[in-house]
Amino acid sequence: MNPYEGLERPPFVWNQHKDVPEKVHEWIRPVGEKRPEDAEAVLYGVPLSRSSISPSAASAFPEACRRAWRGFTTYNLDEDVNLSGLRLYDLGDVKQHVTDIPQCHQNIVDASADVKRHHPGSVSLAIGGDHSITAMIVKGLKEAAPDKTIGIVQLDTHFDLRDMRELGPANGTPIRNMVESGLVKGEHIHNIGLHGFFNTPDLKDYADHHGIHYTTLKQARKNGVAETVAQALESLGGKVDCVYFTCDMDVLDMAYAPGVPATTPGGMRTDELFEAALVCGRHPKVMAMDIVCLDPEKDVAGMTVKAGTHVMLSFLTGVAMR
Amino acid sequence: MNPYEGLERPPFVWNQHKDVPEKVHEWIRPVGEKRPEDAEAVLYGVPLSRSSISPSAASAFPEACRRAWRGFTTYNLDEDVNLSGLRLYDLGDVKQHVTDIPQCHQNIVDASADVKRHHPGSVSLAIGGDHSITAMIVKGLKEAAPDKTIGIVQLDTHFDLRDMRELGPANGTPIRNMVESGLVKGEHIHNIGLHGFFNTPDLKDYADHHGIHYTTLKQARKNGVAETVAQALESLGGKVDCVYFTCDMDVLDMAYAPGVPATTPGGMRTDELFEAALVCGRHPKVMAMDIVCLDPEKDVAGMTVKAGTHVMLSFLTGVAMR
Amino acid sequence: MNPYEGLERPPFVWNQHKDVPEKVHEWIRPVGEKRPEDAEAVLYGVPLSRSSISPSAASAFPEACRRAWRGFTTYNLDEDVNLSGLRLYDLGDVKQHVTDIPQCHQNIVDASADVKRHHPGSVSLAIGGDHSITAMIVKGLKEAAPDKTIGIVQLDTHFDLRDMRELGPANGTPIRNMVESGLVKGEHIHNIGLHGFFNTPDLKDYADHHGIHYTTLKQARKNGVAETVAQALESLGGKVDCVYFTCDMDVLDMAYAPGVPATTPGGMRTDELFEAALVCGRHPKVMAMDIVCLDPEKDVAGMTVKAGTHVMLSFLTGVAMR
Amino acid sequence: MNPYEGLERPPFVWNQHKDVPEKVHEWIRPVGEKRPEDAEAVLYGVPLSRSSISPSAASAFPEACRRAWRGFTTYNLDEDVNLSGLRLYDLGDVKQHVTDIPQCHQNIVDASADVKRHHPGSVSLAIGGDHSITAMIVKGLKEAAPDKTIGIVQLDTHFDLRDMRELGPANGTPIRNMVESGLVKGEHIHNIGLHGFFNTPDLKDYADHHGIHYTTLKQARKNGVAETVAQALESLGGKVDCVYFTCDMDVLDMAYAPGVPATTPGGMRTDELFEAALVCGRHPKVMAMDIVCLDPEKDVAGMTVKAGTHVMLSFLTGVAMR
Amino acid sequence: MNPYEGLERPPFVWNQHKDVPEKVHEWIRPVGEKRPEDAEAVLYGVPLSRSSISPSAASAFPEACRRAWRGFTTYNLDEDVNLSGLRLYDLGDVKQHVTDIPQCHQNIVDASADVKRHHPGSVSLAIGGDHSITAMIVKGLKEAAPDKTIGIVQLDTHFDLRDMRELGPANGTPIRNMVESGLVKGEHIHNIGLHGFFNTPDLKDYADHHGIHYTTLKQARKNGVAETVAQALESLGGKVDCVYFTCDMDVLDMAYAPGVPATTPGGMRTDELFEAALVCGRHPKVMAMDIVCLDPEKDVAGMTVKAGTHVMLSFLTGVAMR
Amino acid sequence: MNPYEGLERPPFVWNQHKDVPEKVHEWIRPVGEKRPEDAEAVLYGVPLSRSSISPSAASAFPEACRRAWRGFTTYNLDEDVNLSGLRLYDLGDVKQHVTDIPQCHQNIVDASADVKRHHPGSVSLAIGGDHSITAMIVKGLKEAAPDKTIGIVQLDTHFDLRDMRELGPANGTPIRNMVESGLVKGEHIHNIGLHGFFNTPDLKDYADHHGIHYTTLKQARKNGVAETVAQALESLGGKVDCVYFTCDMDVLDMAYAPGVPATTPGGMRTDELFEAALVCGRHPKVMAMDIVCLDPEKDVAGMTVKAGTHVMLSFLTGVAMR
Ligand SMILES: [Ca+2]
Ligand SMILES: [Ca+2]
Ligand SMILES: [Ca+2]
Ligand SMILES: [Ca+2]
Ligand SMILES: [Ca+2]
Ligand SMILES: [Ca+2]
Ligand SMILES: [Ca+2]
Ligand SMILES: [Ca+2]
Ligand SMILES: [Ca+2]
Ligand SMILES: [Ca+2]
Ligand SMILES: [Ca+2]
Ligand SMILES: [Ca+2]
Repeated sequence: MNPYEGLERPPFVWNQHKDVPEKVHEWIRPVGEKRPEDAEAVLYGVPLSRSSISPSAASAFPEACRRAWRGFTTYNLDEDVNLSGLRLYDLGDVKQHVTDIPQCHQNIVDASADVKRHHPGSVSLAIGGDHSITAMIVKGLKEAAPDKTIGIVQLDTHFDLRDMRELGPANGTPIRNMVESGLVKGEHIHNIGLHGFFNTPDLKDYADHHGIHYTTLKQARKNGVAETVAQALESLGGKVDCVYFTCDMDVLDMAYAPGVPATTPGGMRTDELFEAALVCGRHPKVMAMDIVCLDPEKDVAGMTVKAGTHVMLSFLTGVAMR
Repeated sequence: MNPYEGLERPPFVWNQHKDVPEKVHEWIRPVGEKRPEDAEAVLYGVPLSRSSISPSAASAFPEACRRAWRGFTTYNLDEDVNLSGLRLYDLGDVKQHVTDIPQCHQNIVDASADVKRHHPGSVSLAIGGDHSITAMIVKGLKEAAPDKTIGIVQLDTHFDLRDMRELGPANGTPIRNMVESGLVKGEHIHNIGLHGFFNTPDLKDYADHHGIHYTTLKQARKNGVAETVAQALESLGGKVDCVYFTCDMDVLDMAYAPGVPATTPGGMRTDELFEAALVCGRHPKVMAMDIVCLDPEKDVAGMTVKAGTHVMLSFLTGVAMR
Repeated sequence: MNPYEGLERPPFVWNQHKDVPEKVHEWIRPVGEKRPEDAEAVLYGVPLSRSSISPSAASAFPEACRRAWRGFTTYNLDEDVNLSGLRLYDLGDVKQHVTDIPQCHQNIVDASADVKRHHPGSVSLAIGGDHSITAMIVKGLKEAAPDKTIGIVQLDTHFDLRDMRELGPANGTPIRNMVESGLVKGEHIHNIGLHGFFNTPDLKDYADHHGIHYTTLKQARKNGVAETVAQALESLGGKVDCVYFTCDMDVLDMAYAPGVPATTPGGMRTDELFEAALVCGRHPKVMAMDIVCLDPEKDVAGMTVKAGTHVMLSFLTGVAMR
Repeated sequence: MNPYEGLERPPFVWNQHKDVPEKVHEWIRPVGEKRPEDAEAVLYGVPLSRSSISPSAASAFPEACRRAWRGFTTYNLDEDVNLSGLRLYDLGDVKQHVTDIPQCHQNIVDASADVKRHHPGSVSLAIGGDHSITAMIVKGLKEAAPDKTIGIVQLDTHFDLRDMRELGPANGTPIRNMVESGLVKGEHIHNIGLHGFFNTPDLKDYADHHGIHYTTLKQARKNGVAETVAQALESLGGKVDCVYFTCDMDVLDMAYAPGVPATTPGGMRTDELFEAALVCGRHPKVMAMDIVCLDPEKDVAGMTVKAGTHVMLSFLTGVAMR
Repeated sequence: MNPYEGLERPPFVWNQHKDVPEKVHEWIRPVGEKRPEDAEAVLYGVPLSRSSISPSAASAFPEACRRAWRGFTTYNLDEDVNLSGLRLYDLGDVKQHVTDIPQCHQNIVDASADVKRHHPGSVSLAIGGDHSITAMIVKGLKEAAPDKTIGIVQLDTHFDLRDMRELGPANGTPIRNMVESGLVKGEHIHNIGLHGFFNTPDLKDYADHHGIHYTTLKQARKNGVAETVAQALESLGGKVDCVYFTCDMDVLDMAYAPGVPATTPGGMRTDELFEAALVCGRHPKVMAMDIVCLDPEKDVAGMTVKAGTHVMLSFLTGVAMR
Repeated sequence: MNPYEGLERPPFVWNQHKDVPEKVHEWIRPVGEKRPEDAEAVLYGVPLSRSSISPSAASAFPEACRRAWRGFTTYNLDEDVNLSGLRLYDLGDVKQHVTDIPQCHQNIVDASADVKRHHPGSVSLAIGGDHSITAMIVKGLKEAAPDKTIGIVQLDTHFDLRDMRELGPANGTPIRNMVESGLVKGEHIHNIGLHGFFNTPDLKDYADHHGIHYTTLKQARKNGVAETVAQALESLGGKVDCVYFTCDMDVLDMAYAPGVPATTPGGMRTDELFEAALVCGRHPKVMAMDIVCLDPEKDVAGMTVKAGTHVMLSFLTGVAMR
């Protein structure tokens, strides 16, 4: 039995046979019969994407990400940081139901809260799944620590502020969901990377009305994307207890990330995204993150799966540098 | 406004400018402000696939099918039958919700009943969607004509008898759903085309226990698939009031139909399937059919979409030959 | 009947059912029985690519572009401009012949002139087709307004100055065609984006001899591509009555635009191209534009079709900002 | 200079370095400065497909076929026949023009006549190109030998009897072109392999009216496709001086031949086609053949190019068995 | 440590959490610290393909096959046989070297002998890898049981009798390797499925000279492929002590198996192959088998990997039916 | 016979029929019966990739590169340099063996030495093949000119310093191979372009210990990649007799170069690489170069093959500018 109630074991485990881990799959630790006590960071998969507006196999990314680990070493040459010193556990996947989406979402809330309660000091990474999961994870974090104020740094092509009454808790509504349910205040949300013809004016009005901060990719590039993220974190740092970093992979340009449900031209480059993820990881108030809307079945040459996995490692590099 | 309550207009309409239709898209009639009175056959799309066990874009098939019409003439050379004499209307698509699967299913029930009530004598074709829709369509038919006994001819690689308690109304459970809800008797179900390692023994036991008839592809090929279907129809003909033909496209071999969620080797050839569909269309008791589990996003060279569209036309050829 | 003589209705029309358009396909207006009087902008397709040097399905882009509209909102977030206020009509496609290329070209000339005569004050967009169409469209514009001097801004990997005697009016010769037929003066042509090993020295000599302005991508990047285009427009502004903007999609790097007949490495990025298109749209003398040599059948993950559609919308954003 | 007027050298030649040829590319002979005197068979490419109804890169098949030769040995194991004993020359490609389709077609007529005049006793193979070339090749054969009556065996999904006045000499009209220009009598034409919804009733009426023989694939399979072809040849043998075999690769099922402009389900299998081609090659009156409508750019895993090349080799096996 | 010397643990293991296995990956048993005593069948991977004539990633099939297990149940519906009753262990993969092919081959010999010595009564399956491995496995079997006469049933498009002096122990030479090294007598070899233009006459001569039995696919189809295999087994049964079944996946038609280094048209269908594999599995003298030359990186829609995995399961069905 | 002992003629030759070459394939000269005396530059293919760690078809790049020549003119517009003035010969391919990797490597050493001896003043380009070939080519150069000190400029995502005892002369070890065999001193090696999580700390330690210079992509971009390369060349210029430029195509970002065995995100752009190659070509001490680890079978839309060919042409542009 998996020691976490709402979580199943990951579908497979690597046979780790190196004394000193070189590759990521040799480093990340599986969980045994008991919850580990020494986790500095934990990750779990959220294989849900039937709540996506357009058809999506983002539910397949948790497993695809685990498979991709083998293609990466633990050593970040750019920063001369070896992740293998970080104690990171793979807790498994949140249980899902084939036709009961509310149950799926409740499971995510429960798992998120459960993980937070047992690992209050660990950084947690959720491997999605579509963007609807973010509101559920944050709800779980809030349940586990009701007094903590949470800020959000969101990298996304979209506002994700669409109307809950029309779509329910889908991948177009998580930010609105969090605002309307009182989990997060509008002014504690920073969305960076928006661009082009992929949002509607009413969503901008909603953002303005609720004081949500947003910076288009074009604006962000003036100082650099990473610097823009750093400023958002600095601004949040003085106002909230902890920061949640949510990375919608569709923020990337379609040349770099064809494997998302609605890939667009005019988006971010991977080098910008990786640096932004590192900046988030390095900030002491960032205690959780997710990677969402990555659909491995739409991928070309495996490049989006690699990019998503690299985001995870860039973020962890930041964590290791704290 | 669309004159059918539960239905939306199709996303697009072809500009039909030939006096005498040559291609299928020039022949099938759109619906205006009022319900047509002269329909011999009607079709509608059911763009639902978030109830699928594995990720599926079968929700995209109704639109893909309409696009594919342009690649087919109305004239079946093999049978020297011109479909253009048949008055067939495209009623649009059943409305769907992004996160409320029960609502999606209820909409299908309602639309099916509505269509049946307004076109009691017409043959109706539902373009799926995943296989969960079949139980909903049949439920709608039953609501519209509660006294009629319904038989089922199913072409499928699978029994679709998995446990409702585990999966809910998913694409693995429609036949069991119909049996357990009393819509259809087990002995009035004929499943043809099963093969290989894609079912479990307990499903066979369930089929045996409920008297469901099944014929593996290997067995069916001894007399020919079409002949096997003809015998099933003949057998049903004496026992039921009307027959529903459900065609799960995954019954095809993966060389012919890569565009299904779980394509398998060892399946049916398209020539066998087309002939079987024609046999169903020709039988006077077959009053409705569906085509399900065709995922255009998994397709290779557009071949599965063409095959699914051909099934529809083969079936209609049979109808025209009645 | 289509009210424009040389034009056929588009192959399909979207079912537009939103009161306030949100998506591009809900905004662009179809044409009824009469020519619209209030058009601020018009577009039409030119589905010709059998005049291409290498095999090309650029003839499929007009339809592919219309399909892609659904993936874009009317709202440009970067510029805070909503295109839905612009009255844009889709006039349909220029009629084509299967084997008579001269007839195809004459139809384009006629349609271009016809559109210009009926919408003299509207901006017109031609959705190609291969680059041979540009000379025909400009010829039509000239026929409709013989006194107007026309300047050209061309974004292209190639000079398009190959010898008419060798190739005829193909996609390698449109600029030479216009120069030699006296439609446009060499010094009124600005080609921006050339690069690499895709032109011959004699074409450069021809350009030099005729005073054609050209700026390689490398040179253009020194001040920025958009700024370079702005300078070309400024220079032309004082010399010509109107400017024609022709966008050969092969100007893009192959990582961003695999879907062109001869995609090359070392080309432009989409963010550069979109900004350049906006600059063109914003200039008051730019009265017509085209998008050519986009072959949807060569596309990968639909990215080139999306990029081409984005060019159209970026240009229209500029128009809306005038 | 190529010794054949209307022909260019093939774009490349293999470096043949085996004393005894094992692979096809080591066997087929290039042409030097003079026309060979000892040819038992000759082949040439016809890289034209801009006359195709839908966009096609069938013009790329001659080169793709030559590349594919390396994947085949000269030895047919099934028949224990070694083709290397047959003296086969590759004469090159018919010259084409980018925008002058009538000139392209005239070049084919001239080349066909030229080849026939210089190799009256040799079997000639034309590697297309789209189906429009067949009428041109036959016209050339007729010019070279005006007294000879020609019969046609056509393997095709289509009648190719569409109206010349609508399409001109396109790939939908070659058979009608030949009938109406008096090159071939209707009763000397046998079309085998038609199926499904890909023809219109008026074409069947035209065929009936002109006495054209046709056998659907379904009918042909009753005795076997090869046997049906053999009967057609036997029937023609008593009536005509020579037989032309034209193989439209779209006769194949899409599972076997995705690389054609309009691939269809329900078509022929490759094993049926190869045997039919051998039967044609073996018949003493078959003096010329072509392979058309194979578009390598649409291919999947190179399978259609391999199938087309195998057709050529199966036919030549028959020739070698005479 | 893996208890088998020449074998490494498989790269990953499935988390098997069902009490009663339903899927293949829940059934096949991993090996712990000790060699299992109760194995009825064992399998191991041979991830070597750098000895392939053309570039091949057949080395990736062992892992791809293990991944594919999840897509199959243990229950063969056609035969009403549940494999879950068979005790099958996955012993891991034979260790390979990056640049020392002789060492790779020796490791295979050693592993094969080791497995045979420890599981003399078990059926063993080797998941290749390219065809060079067959000679090594058989050599290992011979080392473990030198007195046993071994017969071979080979399904292949090729003779695999090419000259060792030219190629060394490559995938074109394993049968010759075994004959020339005295492991197997020519008359104890039955090759079934050869076809087309993929062998040379000298190989046929070699086969004839050494009394190797061969049956082309065309010949085999006269009585059926499975029946032909049954006759070969019957013939061998009286002459040898045990039979080795080697299945080169390139025996399949390219429409069914694009994922092989040299896929060909005119090959076997999967239904024929599966039945042949079952016949082999059922024969009491067949004690070992392999599946070779399946390159997952060349696959289309995963179909060849599924076909290869199905071959393994069909063979095991036969074993379970003994 | 090829006049170079260790080399075979290229598999094919283009039919060059232009008086003045316009395209690259019309310019590069084949070799006749004798070695050319006037070569300014020579190139040869090294079709070896069975020494690659992961499966690779880099052996197919020499032929793919030759095929790609047709897509490029000889004229570099950016630099206004026409390569056609440079006398460049294609010497053919180094002979390879199917299973004897040491023999393959020795053939490369011999060919490299032979080419160097006969063309001591010519720049030589080796078209790989995997990166193991670099150590062999340099060894050959050293054999031909033992007194010359050789420096290395390496563009690579990897150090290529893995342990020879573990892998042998594979594509992960060439730099270490050269250092340990004394061919090149550590301080004469400059590796530029490293990034991300694709190296291990021990390799960095090895580099540090041996004084190997390395600059990550991130560092290099501060002054520009080309400028960084220029500085490395300048530094080497004062210390060594000649410089070898080795270009591992996996240095490119996966969006630009999917066709390499282990493509990564976060890599170089093609415009950076092309400029770097030109800088190398222009430096008078660079006498040889290679392009390695480009696997055409993994390519998407032919983009990596085009990029690799462009690298060759950019380098030659530099040579022409000397
Ligand atoms: Ca998004
Ligand atoms: Ca989002
Ligand atoms: Ca099914
Ligand atoms: Ca089903
Ligand atoms: Ca261009
Ligand atoms: Ca152009
Ligand atoms: Ca046809
Ligand atoms: Ca035809
Ligand atoms: Ca084989
Ligand atoms: Ca073999
Ligand atoms: Ca590398
Ligand atoms: Ca390297």
